[in-house]
Amino acid sequence: MRQRNKPWADDFLMEHQEIVIAEPKENKGKWKKIFGNTNPIHLEIGTGKGQFIVGMADQYPGINFIGIEMAKSIIVDAAQKVIGSEQQNVLLVNENANDLEEFFAENEVSTIYLNFSDPWPKNRHEKRRLSYYTFLAQYQNVLSGNGELIMKTDNRSLFEYSLVSFSTYGLQLEEVSLDLHQLNDATNVMTEYEEKFSNKGQPIYRCTAKF
Amino acid sequence: MRQRNKPWADDFLMEHQEIVIAEPKENKGKWKKIFGNTNPIHLEIGTGKGQFIVGMADQYPGINFIGIEMAKSIIVDAAQKVIGSEQQNVLLVNENANDLEEFFAENEVSTIYLNFSDPWPKNRHEKRRLSYYTFLAQYQNVLSGNGELIMKTDNRSLFEYSLVSFSTYGLQLEEVSLDLHQLNDATNVMTEYEEKFSNKGQPIYRCTAKF
Repeated sequence: MRQRNKPWADDFLMEHQEIVIAEPKENKGKWKKIFGNTNPIHLEIGTGKGQFIVGMADQYPGINFIGIEMAKSIIVDAAQKVIGSEQQNVLLVNENANDLEEFFAENEVSTIYLNFSDPWPKNRHEKRRLSYYTFLAQYQNVLSGNGELIMKTDNRSLFEYSLVSFSTYGLQLEEVSLDLHQLNDATNVMTEYEEKFSNKGQPIYRCTAKF
Repeated sequence: MRQRNKPWADDFLMEHQEIVIAEPKENKGKWKKIFGNTNPIHLEIGTGKGQFIVGMADQYPGINFIGIEMAKSIIVDAAQKVIGSEQQNVLLVNENANDLEEFFAENEVSTIYLNFSDPWPKNRHEKRRLSYYTFLAQYQNVLSGNGELIMKTDNRSLFEYSLVSFSTYGLQLEEVSLDLHQLNDATNVMTEYEEKFSNKGQPIYRCTAKF
């Protein structure tokens, strides 16, 4: 996502540590305590401006949502949405997904969402794709036994790559949709990208997989 | 495929038993002997009018191709194409794929093609889809250890279903293409359906999977 420099972002994040957790490593294994309940934890990697996670939190009050977004100038937008929504079941983390296991204990998460992740189209950048096997190994560790990985994207090449990568790693596909919006799934919460691309008539791909 | 009645089909097939094998069960485990060489055997299930298998046989003279097609009035078209092409590496079988294991021994086949198979869209017809697990079990038996299953279709629902069915059965996806003709793969041989649908601008889906 294109980032505009926001000189106020640091101060904003400092002032909203109740939403954007400053030291997520300290919460490893303790997230349910932080949320103050025993509800399942769903994690979105690459939360962007937060439309998805805030929409999901609204739709599923019995689930705790955590959004990870490494871009400071973008996560502030998500934080503002969370503040505006007054939801108590969303927290944000301004970190890189590479370090996922530093923030979450084994089995701590029940669902991971990869929404419109950067496709990194060049072969030499394969390792950066969020469906590369090193990431899958991390997801497997933090996900509970029957935890799910749910991916949505408009990027055909990334989706093709991811299906093969999931399969090669041993994940089992539970659902594949090659034109999500044809399903008229009323529970589907759209991301900002999803809205933009589906308005242009592009198909949105989704799959759900289990380790 | 819509079938026109062809009263001459029986006679035609009787006269061309060198191409359309009359008693395929007798060839079980002996197909390489019938072809007169030790080349690998590739099998197309639902060969239709034969454009794919004849094109493949032309492109890969070192492979033996067998096409199964249950509709008599359609397989005669494929047989005429084989006769016209004068290829020695194609045989046809006018039978139902339900009985695959009666025609092929374990490990006898190295690749199976499912091209534009009937999608059987109604749930109650799931068992008839060629990617239903009972068929997968048959493919697994007749395919050699590193044998491949290659599916092409224009039908989104069938492809979505098949990816999940393959994965659930334990097949590993090696390649997925959600718009085959964008790849400009010069080795791709088109079926009649493929030509028709891709000319209309519809995406063609393909995947390769291994047991």
